[in-house]
Order: sequence, then structure tokens, then C-alpha cells
Amino acid sequence: MLNIKTLLNSLSIEEKIGQLMQLAPFFFIGDLKKEVYGPIQALGLKEEEVFLSGSVLGIGNASEMRRVQEAYLAKSRHKIPLIFMADIIHGYKTIFPVPLAMSTSFNPDLIKKAARISALEAQTAGIHVTFSPMADLSRDPRWGRVVEGFGEDPYLNQVYAKAMVEGYQHDGIEKVGNLASCVKHFAAYGASEAGRDYNTVDISRLNLHQYYLSGYKAAIDAGARLVMTSFNIIEGIPATQNKYLLRELLKVQWQFDGVVISDYDSLRQTIEHGTSEDDYDAAKKAILAGLDIEMATSSYVLNLKKLIENNEVPMSLLDDAVYRVLKLKNDLGLFDNPFKGADEQKEREFVLSKENKKVALEVAKESMVLLKNDSVLPLKYTQKIALLGEYSKNPHTIGPWSWHGRSEDCTPLYQAISKYTKPLLVSDSNDLSTLSPSDYQALVESDVVVVAIGEHAIESGEAHSKTNLTLKPNDLRLIEDLSKLGKKIVLVLYHGRPVVLTDVEPKVHAILDTFFLGTMAQEAITETLFGFNNPSGKLTMSYPRSVGQIPIYYNYLNTGRPFKNDGNPFTSFYLDEKNTPLYPFGYGLSYSSFKLSNYRLSKQIIRESEPILVSIDVENASPIDGYETVQLYIRDYAAEVARPVQELKQFKKVFVKAKSKQTVTFELTVSDLVYVHSDLSTYADHGRFSIQVGNTSNQVHTTDITFL
Amino acid sequence: MLNIKTLLNSLSIEEKIGQLMQLAPFFFIGDLKKEVYGPIQALGLKEEEVFLSGSVLGIGNASEMRRVQEAYLAKSRHKIPLIFMADIIHGYKTIFPVPLAMSTSFNPDLIKKAARISALEAQTAGIHVTFSPMADLSRDPRWGRVVEGFGEDPYLNQVYAKAMVEGYQHDGIEKVGNLASCVKHFAAYGASEAGRDYNTVDISRLNLHQYYLSGYKAAIDAGARLVMTSFNIIEGIPATQNKYLLRELLKVQWQFDGVVISDYDSLRQTIEHGTSEDDYDAAKKAILAGLDIEMATSSYVLNLKKLIENNEVPMSLLDDAVYRVLKLKNDLGLFDNPFKGADEQKEREFVLSKENKKVALEVAKESMVLLKNDSVLPLKYTQKIALLGEYSKNPHTIGPWSWHGRSEDCTPLYQAISKYTKPLLVSDSNDLSTLSPSDYQALVESDVVVVAIGEHAIESGEAHSKTNLTLKPNDLRLIEDLSKLGKKIVLVLYHGRPVVLTDVEPKVHAILDTFFLGTMAQEAITETLFGFNNPSGKLTMSYPRSVGQIPIYYNYLNTGRPFKNDGNPFTSFYLDEKNTPLYPFGYGLSYSSFKLSNYRLSKQIIRESEPILVSIDVENASPIDGYETVQLYIRDYAAEVARPVQELKQFKKVFVKAKSKQTVTFELTVSDLVYVHSDLSTYADHGRFSIQVGNTSNQVHTTDITFL
Repeated sequence: MLNIKTLLNSLSIEEKIGQLMQLAPFFFIGDLKKEVYGPIQALGLKEEEVFLSGSVLGIGNASEMRRVQEAYLAKSRHKIPLIFMADIIHGYKTIFPVPLAMSTSFNPDLIKKAARISALEAQTAGIHVTFSPMADLSRDPRWGRVVEGFGEDPYLNQVYAKAMVEGYQHDGIEKVGNLASCVKHFAAYGASEAGRDYNTVDISRLNLHQYYLSGYKAAIDAGARLVMTSFNIIEGIPATQNKYLLRELLKVQWQFDGVVISDYDSLRQTIEHGTSEDDYDAAKKAILAGLDIEMATSSYVLNLKKLIENNEVPMSLLDDAVYRVLKLKNDLGLFDNPFKGADEQKEREFVLSKENKKVALEVAKESMVLLKNDSVLPLKYTQKIALLGEYSKNPHTIGPWSWHGRSEDCTPLYQAISKYTKPLLVSDSNDLSTLSPSDYQALVESDVVVVAIGEHAIESGEAHSKTNLTLKPNDLRLIEDLSKLGKKIVLVLYHGRPVVLTDVEPKVHAILDTFFLGTMAQEAITETLFGFNNPSGKLTMSYPRSVGQIPIYYNYLNTGRPFKNDGNPFTSFYLDEKNTPLYPFGYGLSYSSFKLSNYRLSKQIIRESEPILVSIDVENASPIDGYETVQLYIRDYAAEVARPVQELKQFKKVFVKAKSKQTVTFELTVSDLVYVHSDLSTYADHGRFSIQVGNTSNQVHTTDITFL
Repeated sequence: MLNIKTLLNSLSIEEKIGQLMQLAPFFFIGDLKKEVYGPIQALGLKEEEVFLSGSVLGIGNASEMRRVQEAYLAKSRHKIPLIFMADIIHGYKTIFPVPLAMSTSFNPDLIKKAARISALEAQTAGIHVTFSPMADLSRDPRWGRVVEGFGEDPYLNQVYAKAMVEGYQHDGIEKVGNLASCVKHFAAYGASEAGRDYNTVDISRLNLHQYYLSGYKAAIDAGARLVMTSFNIIEGIPATQNKYLLRELLKVQWQFDGVVISDYDSLRQTIEHGTSEDDYDAAKKAILAGLDIEMATSSYVLNLKKLIENNEVPMSLLDDAVYRVLKLKNDLGLFDNPFKGADEQKEREFVLSKENKKVALEVAKESMVLLKNDSVLPLKYTQKIALLGEYSKNPHTIGPWSWHGRSEDCTPLYQAISKYTKPLLVSDSNDLSTLSPSDYQALVESDVVVVAIGEHAIESGEAHSKTNLTLKPNDLRLIEDLSKLGKKIVLVLYHGRPVVLTDVEPKVHAILDTFFLGTMAQEAITETLFGFNNPSGKLTMSYPRSVGQIPIYYNYLNTGRPFKNDGNPFTSFYLDEKNTPLYPFGYGLSYSSFKLSNYRLSKQIIRESEPILVSIDVENASPIDGYETVQLYIRDYAAEVARPVQELKQFKKVFVKAKSKQTVTFELTVSDLVYVHSDLSTYADHGRFSIQVGNTSNQVHTTDITFL
């Protein structure tokens, strides 16, 4: 059994510092340069410094992993293996829906399953750590990385972050097949100003604790072994060198004993932020703040020794950081097996296997949201269908941030549909005037037009922010033209963020919102279009009516002058727009028709030891079985600090058979009533609360209770 | 001489509490009900409580003031006079440009003059206190109240807030003709989320101190006797009961010894905010926090006595609040003359006098910004002019928040222009197809079309926020139609906030941005159009290219990955929009053509006691005399907390005769280099700074200096 302390003490200062450096594979094996996805510039490293490095960022497959580890170990005095880390965000090669899509499932078990398959596939390449989940709450759809997150709600962030960590780490990171999870980006990256990626974040500490931290904290509580810092500043100081965040909060208050790693180049970028004079200053501030591993740059390796010699940094801080890295390697079992996981045979047999794709299909089917349906869906075989829009033919449903995923593994929509029926017309043109006479005739004769359009994968994700969230002008024109022709239009949307559908909504008869559903996207969509899958997703971000409403989110604070539509002109409203979103949080239709009734509470008084049972009947009056997600919200009417008009506290997704009814019961306890006070302590106040239950956030049954 | 302490001690508890209540005039004289501008609802007051009230909100004229004061004093045991307070925002009846317009003058002396006239006019009605200046920094043009402020820059807010207080209070509030100034809205009201008025504010304490507080602080340092609280919450607690803001910061740290007053109904609104259980709780939290006068509601008067009896509030806090009110009355000289100022004869002779209007014209001429000029302005007499757009005929140039101002006192543009030339065509239609054949012919024959359009006054100001900032569709079509006709177009804009001109700008040949210039607006505009006034204003808010860029402001913080247009896709940018505004802060053209050159510093090293002289030559190569505003910005390259890429620190507006040159010299001292550190202390750090000088923020000469 390895004694980490003994090993640590046997290392030279250079060897210690090397453990805190993370480099791309090509630093070790020159011919792997193709693997680098960003501009790693000349870092000023000597070969011997490279071969002291502690970890590797990204790897292509098992054989490459072996080559790098072998080359490294051959030169390593202490034979301390490298850890291999990579961005496995929503699948390795079997790609699952983007996280924003998965979040609409309100099914954490499903997400856990997706993470489980992702881990199993990725480990075959010798990957040990994934930079996932991203638990960055965001209220700004301009921000491209909302696609990687779970939406605007702190409770959902918590639930899903936990599920993903449990999926990755499963029964222990020491076991083969499990990945260590690195939760990111600590902290509040999703509040990037004006929705522009990497931009300034400025929120109060109360807001940080009340809303933005919940996902990271849940991931850590679920055992996430690493935390990645964010690119943004907060309280004027970049997260990567923010002592309050990394040391006071994370390492001391939360007692996090894992590894804190910077994001790509984010330590050196503190010079651009204007909080570091130079690399030396950057390294000093980061190690003092609590950063352990520096990703992709060399501030630590080139400066930490001098900082310690100059007594600007105590050796104890270096030792603590290195200890954390060595402990992670040991916990992963890398000292016993430096090639852990790498398995060329499993790579061939298991990755992208039929079983894994089946799970991907299952997840995809629950990760889409039916926004509108004027009795046009599901389609019938007997209908004459025209299929238009660029996604009718292109297979690009992987979405952003799927480094190993390939569009070639996806089926185009027209192919998926052809399993069921032969469309009268398939065209990816968005200009009807370019149709041939016979195609145009087919269009005219069709009973329904499925229009498959939206964003490209490259329009969301890191660095890919937008100011205009409507559909593309050509796509809008296509819908306009079809509408003028009087066609029944089913809009199938592909995108990475909430879009503005205000102008489109009245012109179409159904909207199936599919985000990017991954490898099995079009199969899942096709099953849904034809009614073999009953959509059950609910939005986890508000869809604005216009960009000028942003930020808009369901759990807002009441103002002192709320708009009441009573003619008083001095209320909080817009002269030219409603206060409400087009589609609210928690909204999503089904082919079933659900009605909630008989709302009742076991009592109106809650006490510390006496929960309340909150029940409602869910009736499926339709002839179609379906899932419904019942949501429980609370409102604290009067508190020390202002509380939201609604806060999701629990939800239950239930299967209700056709023409039947069932009761959903929540156990409401005082722990559902707690909040962060102005001194940042968390507890519930006695007093009056509203308890709200519904199947969308803006239509709820409510009653008041008192916490005595 | 009155001893306030003795008076205070002679008051009953009810009499004390009454001093903290402010009611509208009709409470005292029933037939004045017409004066009420908002819904004062039944407050549950008995007549004897009304007649203990300490102050009055708004009054129509001198005779009404006399009636109210007389009625009041007749029933008052101690003959403590009422103070009369009112919103004199940008003039009493002689209306000056809206503050946002005045701020573009970069001429604090002019603004001081406007405030001086406003005070002199208002005092004739017996008004003693004005709720001005509004020092709310704002970066969000959706927010309707940007019209009442001085823009996005903390230094300008400081300069102008000081100027207005000095203008109102002049040589002392004890003297007739001077008003006591109430700075508002404390604090950070301008950061209302999503630009929706009254909405939540959430900023870090660092941001609050670094940027948002400067204007309030400058007003208080200049002697402002009152502070009004804001409608928003901050750190989860409404400003009106925010102990950190009112007591810790304002009364203790800043040692403010004046009166803190709530905004209209803002104390009762804490119940809607969800931080007060009821009126009793609201009153308790507010008096503990440091609120003195409660405007327009009765929480204090109905609850303070009971709170003191219940030992929930110490009598000493009540005494302190009442002392402040009595001291203000005494300082104003009201005990000697309760009718101070009220003067029917002066009301007739001085208000709206020729002399006052002359000053209003002078201010208006400096408060407009020439945004574009393709050699079309100034107009020549010999040109055939068509005058279109709704502001060609309507006289509504007063703008929002001018309670006593009247459009009837303004001249329509066509009349103002007729003093110089007779337009070929005058029409306020924005639909060319409605022109008569002869009018259309006149339009076709015209050499230049002046289009006078924009927002209505009611589209900005309190509660009047917008999500769409482009011009009205009909106005856009008018410009489009004129552009297709190939006309030379001069756009004269009337509005209360930065507008989005991205689509319009290429279609017009000149843009004169006039906001709402007040009583003498059209005379000032006409003089400018014909070259009798050379425009010199500079924008004090950034004009976005699209709403999706908001918030956008010149003094932003650099990101770790600034956009450098070098092809790197992983920088902070938008896929579909530039990062820059259409028109930046500090931008504004002139009929002169200015060139800045020979930028030089007396040395490159600055020390505590050794300022640097920063000089630049301003050359006016044109044949037209003009004013130019030279702006000095700094950047602190590396600091404890991230600093903006530019911060305005000084400016000089200089008159440069035609075909001549002059040198502008700034004395740069270490006090220009200070900033708020993470512990909120203010001082300069040693190190390197960039010193930037230019006549607009985005085109500056730069050099580096070192603070040793």
C-alpha cells in the first residue's frame, strides 16, 4: 500500500511542482499534435520539465494513452503515472442529448444512466477524469454554454449535478469503468454579463450563495473529486485566483479535499484580466488562493520554485496541492495500474455498441419538449408528408462539445422517417422557389409539412454567444411561405439555447423542441412524430418573447410594484412587451391530456418534526398513456431577504395510463423552506408560505401554510 | 434663536412621529385633490394625525402653498411649519433639457446655471426642497429613467451631481431663492434588472462602491441636505429598509447629518418585496435601518408609537430622525418665515421670463449631439427644405418629469424654422403616400429633407421601460422611402434614452440627437441646423448596435480572452454582432473639424507629490469656431481587483477659433489613480498605468506611466 506522504517527501521541489502541470499529449509524443484543440503556445518548457508533468489533457484512444504513459514512465524517476483527463460532456462516442436537453427530462436516473455509459466508453481509451458536470446556473440564453448546463433553476442544478457525478463515479473511482468527476466552472460562470462568454460576472455574495452555488455544492456532496475554476472574475478577482472561492469557501468551509484545476489557460489569463502583473504574480496569487493544477500553461512550473525560495509562498501550500494530486492518482488505482481502463478490445466492442445506442435512444426520447400541438401530432401513416429544412438531410445532431462524437454515426431524419413512411417530398432547401415543379406539386398535395430547422451546433457552446435569438431569416421566410400556402406545419427545432419563437409560433401547428439529441436524435424524433413515443420534457429555461426581456427566469423576486394589469401606470412593466416569457419554466405538452385536480394538504401547519403531505390527482383523460411531471413550488411571503415568487422544491414524474387517474403525494418538510440569510446562514423562518403545485410553473394550484 | 433640542423635548410622541410623515396637499385642503399624481389610497389617518404631518409632497403655486401652510399652522400646537417638497427635475416652468441631454454638454457650470434658475422659479411657489439630482448611474438604456440621469460614467455622475446641488443650494439654503437638494435614489436604482423599472438590483458590494455610489457621495459632499431611498432591493433588502445602506454607510461612515426620505410608497412596498410582514414590521425595519421621513404612506404614523412602547424601537432613534427634520426646517429658515419663498408677484414676473428662457436656450444649444454629418449640415438659406416627421409640428419637447412644464410654452419646429426660411413642405405624416400631389412634388424638388422624429415623452421616465430600442416602424419606413427617393436626409431625433440606429444610420446623411431639450428646444435645434450654433455635445451613454448587446458601456472590464480579431475562435465575442457600440461614450461631432496631436507628458513617472502634466494640441482646421471636449482616461494594468480598460478621470471643454490651435493641459495626480480595493478602501497602487487622451472614448492617444 502506497504511503502518499512518504512519496511526497521523497520528491524534489521540481518533481512536486511538475505534478501541478497539465499538458496535451503531443508534449510527450510529438506525432500526436493533431489532438490539440486549442492554441497551446510556446510555454517555454524544457523537455525535462515536460516529463515532470502530472496529468494529460485529452487523449484519442487506448493505444495513444499507452504510448504517452509508457514514454512518460520511462523517464520518470518515481514512476508516478500521469492521469488522463478529458471533456466527456454528453457521451464519449455514443452521444447523448446535450445537457440542456437532458435536463428537460426531469429524470435524474436517466441522466445518471447516460453518465454511466459515457464513463464506461471513455475509460476504454484510458481516460480517468471527465470535466463534467457543468453546474453553471444561467439565466441568459445569449450565453452559448447554456447548452452544457441544466438551465435556470438551482434545485434542478443540484439534482442533475448529483446524478451525473453518481453516474460517472458509480461504485467508486478505484474500479475500472468509473471516471472521477470534475465539476465546473467554479463559480457563477453562467452569469457572464450580456451573455457574452468569458465576460465579467458581478453578483452579490447573497445571490451567489442563494442560487449559483447549489449545483457545484451538490456535485461535491455527491463525491466529485475535482473542481474546475471558471474563466470569469467575481468580486473583481478571477475565479482561478479567487481566495474567497477556492480557499475560504471550497477548501475550508466545505472541506473539499479533492483537486482544484484551472480551466484552459485561465491562470495566465489573469494578466489580461488585470489582476496579475505577470506569470510570477499569477502563480503566486493562484497557489495562495488554492488552485492545485494549472491547465495548459506553465506559470506554476516556471515560477513556484522561485516563489518558495523568495518566501512568498510557503512550501506547505505546494505540498498540500501535490498531496491532493497524488491522492487522486492513488484513489484511482493508477499506481497499481498506470494503464487503467485502456482496452483496445473493449474499445472495439463496447464503444458505440447497439446496447449503448439503445440507452441513447431512450434518453433522447425523454429529452424533447412539445411546445405546441394543434392536434396535428402525432402524424398518421396515411398522411402525405412533406419534409423540409436543412435538418431533413443533414446528420449533425451531435451538438457542441462532443470531442469524440461523429455526425457520421447519426441517421438523417429523412432516413429515420423512411422506416415508417415515404414522404411525398424531401428537400433541405428553405426557398420554395427553388423547388422543381414536381416537388412543388408534391408540397401542395401534402397533408402536413415537417420543417426541421434551427441552429447549427457551432452556434452554441464555448465562446459562441449570440445577441439575436430568432430563427434564421431564410428559415423564417420558409415558414412564412408555407403558412401563406395554408399548410399544416410541424416545426422540429434543433438548437443549443432558448430561442425566440414569438413570430413563428402563430404560423405553425406544432413545435417539437429537440435541441441536439445526439447519436440517436432522428430515431427519437421520428418515433415521437409518429406517436411511438409520447413527449414528456419540460423546459428548464424560460423562452423569452424577445431578447430585450433578458434576463428572464421563473424564480424572480417580486418588485415593490408588481404589474397587476389594473391600469396603474406606475408598476414594473415594459411599454412594448409583456413581463412573462413566451414559454415558461416547467412547461411542456404531451400527447396525453392531463388535468390536475383535488389539490389537498394533510394540514396547514408545518413544524420541525411534522411534515405536511401535499397531494394532487393527475388525470389522463386521453386514450394515450403518458408521463407527467408534477412540480412543487414554494413562496416565502416575508423573509429577512426577498424571496422568489416561486421556487421549485420537489417534482415527481409519473406514468399515467390512458383514461385513468393517479395521486401524486409530496412530503413537504421544513428543509424545503430554508433559504440563505443575509449572513449567509441557511435555515427556515417561521411564518407564512405559499405551496404551489402544477404541471408548469405558471399554472399552479396554491394554498398557504404556516411554519410554527 | 430656536433650540431644536428643547423643541424636540417639548413634543409628544405623536407630534414627533408626525414630523416623519409626508402627505400631498389635498390632505390639508380638500379642493387640492387635483394635484395628486399617484394613487394615494386610504391611509387610515384621522384628521388630527394628518395635521401632525411634517411635510408636503408637491404644491401648485404660491397661493396654494399659503393656504396649506395657514390651515396647518392654525391647528398646530407648536407652530412647526410644514416643509414643501417637489420634483423639480429639469426646471420648474422654464424647462431645461432632460438631464441625460444636459450631461452631453460636458459643461457642469451650465448645468449649475440651469439648477439655479430652477430653484429661483420653484421657490416662488413656496417650494423648499427639490427631489433632485438623480445620481443613478445606469448602463441599461431599456430603463426609462436614464433620461433623468447623467449616463454611464461614475466620474461624470460625480461632477454633475455636485453642480446641480451647488446650483440649487447656491449660497445657502437659509436664503430666499435657494432650494435644499435631495439626492436620489439611494442606491443603485439604475441597475434595475433587465432595464425594467423597479426591478431587482443585484450587484457586488465592490461594484456598488466602485461605480454606483459616486454620484450620491458627490452630492452629499457638495452639501445635499436630503437623500431619497430607491425602489429597488439590494443584497436582498429594499433600499428603504436597508441598514447597511442607510445607517452603516450613509449615516455612520459618511456621517450624513441630513434627512433620509423614502420614495413614493416605497416603505409600504417592502411588503410586496417580501421583507416586511406588514406595516408594523415595515416601520420597525425602516426606522432601525435609518429612514427618517416616510413619503406618502402611514406605516410610521400608525405603528411607531406601539413599536416604542413594545421596546422594539428605542426612543433615541425616533428622536434622531425628528431632530434631523426639525434641523432642516430651521436651517431653511421656516420657523422665522413659514411662507418662505411663496411670492405671487415674482411668480408672475420671474417664472418663464425672457431672461430665464434665454438661459434655457443657452443650455439647450450645448445639450445636443451631432452623431453623423456627411457635409449636409449646417443647412443653407438657399436650399429648398422639406420638413417631415411628427416633431415638425408638435410642440412636445418638454420631456418626462416636468410637472409644472407645459408644451404650450414651446415653439413647434416649423415655426422656429420659419424665422429663417420657408420650407417647401411641412408635414407631420410619416406616410409619403398620404401627401397631396403638390406636397409630394415639393418633396421631390427639395434639396434636403429634415425628418424630426423619435420617442414620445411618455416612452421614457419612471415606470416607462422598453425592450425594443429602434425607431417606430412607421418612422423607419418613412426614412426607407425617402432614402429610395434619393433624398438628402437630416434626422433630428427626440428621445429619452439611447436608441438603436444601426439600420437607420446608413440611410441618412446627418443625425442631430436632441433628446428632449425643453422649452427652447426647437429654437436651439433651428439655430443648430442653420449653423448659428455649432453642436458640441458628447454622448454620456453608449448607443448599442442592438438590444442584445445590453449592458454595454465604455468602462468595461477586460476579459481573460479579449477579442482581438486574430482568428482565434475562443475569445469573448458574439457570433452575430460586434462587441463595440454603434456610437461610443464621449462621441460627438462638430461643424468644426478638430485634430488632436502632439500628445506629450511632462514625465513618465508619477509620485505622490509630483503630478504629471499631460498635454495635447487641439487644432481646428475648419473655418468655423467651435468647442471641443478633450477627455482624459486612465487604465490600471494590474491591480488587486480588475480595473476597466478606460476610466474617465478629467475633461476640458475648450473653445478653438477657426483655423487655429490651442494646447490643453491636464494635471494628472495620484488621486486620479485611486480605486476601491476588495476591502472597500480607496487608494492607488504602485505600478504601470495607461494614460489616454482623445475627443471620444474609442480614439485616444495613449502612453504609459509608472506610479513609483
